[in-house]
Parts: sequence; C-alpha cells; structure tokens
Amino acid sequence: MQPIGKRRWAIAEGYIPSGSVSQDPALVSHETACILNAGDTPARLRIMVFFKDRAPAGPFKLNVPAQRTLHLRFNDLNDPEPIPRDTDYASVIESDVPIVIQHTRLDSRTPELSLMSTMAFGSD
Amino acid sequence: MQPIGKRRWAIAEGYIPSGSVSQDPALVSHETACILNAGDTPARLRIMVFFKDRAPAGPFKLNVPAQRTLHLRFNDLNDPEPIPRDTDYASVIESDVPIVIQHTRLDSRTPELSLMSTMAFGSD
Amino acid sequence: MQPIGKRRWAIAEGYIPSGSVSQDPALVSHETACILNAGDTPARLRIMVFFKDRAPAGPFKLNVPAQRTLHLRFNDLNDPEPIPRDTDYASVIESDVPIVIQHTRLDSRTPELSLMSTMAFGSD
Amino acid sequence: MQPIGKRRWAIAEGYIPSGSVSQDPALVSHETACILNAGDTPARLRIMVFFKDRAPAGPFKLNVPAQRTLHLRFNDLNDPEPIPRDTDYASVIESDVPIVIQHTRLDSRTPELSLMSTMAFGSD
Repeated sequence: MQPIGKRRWAIAEGYIPSGSVSQDPALVSHETACILNAGDTPARLRIMVFFKDRAPAGPFKLNVPAQRTLHLRFNDLNDPEPIPRDTDYASVIESDVPIVIQHTRLDSRTPELSLMSTMAFGSD
Repeated sequence: MQPIGKRRWAIAEGYIPSGSVSQDPALVSHETACILNAGDTPARLRIMVFFKDRAPAGPFKLNVPAQRTLHLRFNDLNDPEPIPRDTDYASVIESDVPIVIQHTRLDSRTPELSLMSTMAFGSD
Repeated sequence: MQPIGKRRWAIAEGYIPSGSVSQDPALVSHETACILNAGDTPARLRIMVFFKDRAPAGPFKLNVPAQRTLHLRFNDLNDPEPIPRDTDYASVIESDVPIVIQHTRLDSRTPELSLMSTMAFGSD
Repeated sequence: MQPIGKRRWAIAEGYIPSGSVSQDPALVSHETACILNAGDTPARLRIMVFFKDRAPAGPFKLNVPAQRTLHLRFNDLNDPEPIPRDTDYASVIESDVPIVIQHTRLDSRTPELSLMSTMAFGSD
C-alpha cells in the first residue's frame, strides 16, 4: 500500500493525570499517540517533549514496522527520562517516512472515564 | 452539489471495548467512521485495518450512494473477518470519489457514556 | 481583521439524541456548528443536511454578521424542516466569505454529560 | 529544532461554564488553548475574542518562549477584560512565528468530568 501521512507532527496538548480510580491497565489514566505506518518501509521516530519552564526532553526513539500501528502511551516513555505526571507538556514527532498520528487521552480520575481525541498537526 | 473531500483517509486510533453496561444498540460501546458522500456519484470504498503485531485485515468493501451519509460501525465489519475487540487497530479508507470521514467512539464500559470525535486525516 | 477560514465545510458526524436527563437549555443534548466570521463582511450561509436513506434536506439559510460568532444548534433548525432526532446525518455548509466551523456535541442521555468536538473539514 | 505550525489560528468553539463541582484548580471547568512554540525564537501572540452580539474583545497579548509550551486558560485572561462565563465565544490567535494550537475543554459541571479536544484551524 502507498504510504499516507506526513513526516513531522505536533501535539500541543499533553497532561498525564497521576490519579486513577482503576488499576486495570485499560482504564488507568493515559495519554496516547496513535501512530499508523501504512507504507511498506519501517518508520524510525524521534519524539521531543516540550514543557512550560524547562528545556525539552528527548529525543525518545522508537520504530514502527511497515504496515503496522503503534498506540504509544506517553506514560510508558522512560528513555532518556520519564514524562512527569500532573505537568503540562507538548510533543513533536518526526519520522523518516510518512505516518499518521492521532492524539487520545483517557482520564479516569473520577469513577466515570472521560475520552478526548484529535488528529495531530501534520507538516512536511 | 459539487463533491467535497478527499479520496484517501486514515484513522490512526481504533479500539472497540468488549464491555458495555447497556445493551441498547444506541449505547453499546462502538467505534464509527462517519462517511459523507455529498457528490452526485456513488462512492466505492475499500478499508484496510492495521494492527500492532499481525498483517493487515481487508479489504472490507462497501458503497455509499450519491448524496448520502453512512455512519459505519467497525463493530459491524465481518467480511473478510471481524475486527477483534479490546485490540489496538488503525484504518485506511480509499474511495473512487471525494468523500469526508469523521471518526467517533462511544464508550460505555462504565454507566456514564463517554464520547470522542475527530476528522480523519485526508489525503489525495 | 483579515478573514480566516474556508468557504465550504463538511461535518460527517451528526446525531441528536432525543433524550436528556436535564431540561436546562445549557444541558439538553445538542449538536452545534460553531461558526466564526472574523472578517469585515457579513457571511451568508447555506446548509444542506444528508441522511442514510432519503434525499438531503435544505438549504437552511442563515447569516453571521461581520466579526461575530454563531454557535448554531442543529436542534433549532426548522426551515424548510426540522432535523429528525435519533437519526444519523451529515452536513455541508457553504458561505460566500471565509469562515471557520467547529463541530461539538453535548450528550446528556445519562446524568453525567459527555462532550466531543472537532474542527470541521474545510475546503475551497 | 525547525519551527512547526502556522502563524494564524482560529478556534470557533468557546464556552466557559460558570459552575464546577470541584474547587481543585486541576478540575475546575476550564477552556484551554495549548500553544507549542517548538522553534528557536520567542513567539509574540495577539488574541482576539469574538462574541454573538457585541464587538470583539482584545487584543490579549502574551509571549511563549522558544522551545516551550503554554497551556493558556481562557479563564485567566483579564487584560483588557475578562472572558464572560456562560457565554458563547470564539477566538483568533496570531503569532509572529509558527506555532501549533490545540483547543481543550474540561467541563466539571457534574461530578464526573468531561473532556473534549481538537486541533485549532491553522492558516498562513
């Protein structure tokens, strides 16, 4: 399949609540970058994370195989450093091949979960 | 009316929860691709579904008549295979005429429903 | 101020739940097209509404003054006909000057409200 | 890092509920413009706020340092005037360098919070 997407994406919103009513991994508060690499070439990604009052963190490096999707939880990023909880952040994701990125948060600070989602901002 | 939209669309987020508090069809957890074909020509669509660690599924084929909308639940796709529940996926939708696609999820794993929606990523 | 936006917009998702726990107008289930006309010229709009299995409704006509915003509830459209409840629909909004359109739904079928929002798909 | 984004952004939806069940600052009903300035130059912003039936408010002026993000709550704008509560509004944000803007609302009028988010409409 022909690749679809852009090589640079930005997500301006970012916030991982430290609290969750549930400990079920599917229902723990989390923030996700859903990455689709529909093309025939593996994608090598570099993520930079931006904050309000300190220098950016990263690059976080990862790969998405050809014709696969990766729903990456920012909660799981650890190298070179974890993303602090209860802290505003933003991110820029760069890839060597076209990909598509959608941003989703599941918030379970209260017993009823709340969802939000948007396509990230793509650019070449 | 003049057609509006693009011929290729991607949705990077996809996840159908297996659980629902309600059995009312309108309130069962579901994931929808809302497709608008505003033009005067029927649209023939092919959907490919991508996963984390297996080959893509599809093509799922369907038509949207001229000047009609179809709110397609991924839950209802069965041919060539159903979409697995509780599994991350993504999708690419191709059409032979311009269409518009918006992605919506209603999650009713808890008694209070939660909604999210975004325009898909369109490309030509 | 210089105008910003596009002259043609599409919203592929549309669904007005007939039920609401609350009768407070701010909390009744509703679907909104938030329209911004930031320019110096009044905008004349024509809205067509599309369905799954009948001919489109409209045009619904309305104006948005220069430098004003209108948060239009589809619930309130009545001329030439009301939008049916509990029915999938989609819409195309055309303007004679550039505008910006964002789509929002507040769902209060259960005691806790649920929100979703996305920019509409703009085109020229 | 190379800048990413656009210099003009519009958010057509805007509404700050006056009520909140919680007084926890993280959970008070709020509306946010998440701004990312990924480039090496500080961004100088001017925000105009539009209403249904009065002249626009602003410009509200603020800066976002190079390589930083600012999650701006419209609730906090005060100069030249505060944003009225329970009132429909929209906004245009202009910057002298490329930025990315995402719009998010947390609504806590009921005990369970509700979230929505979308990329703003970017233009050059």
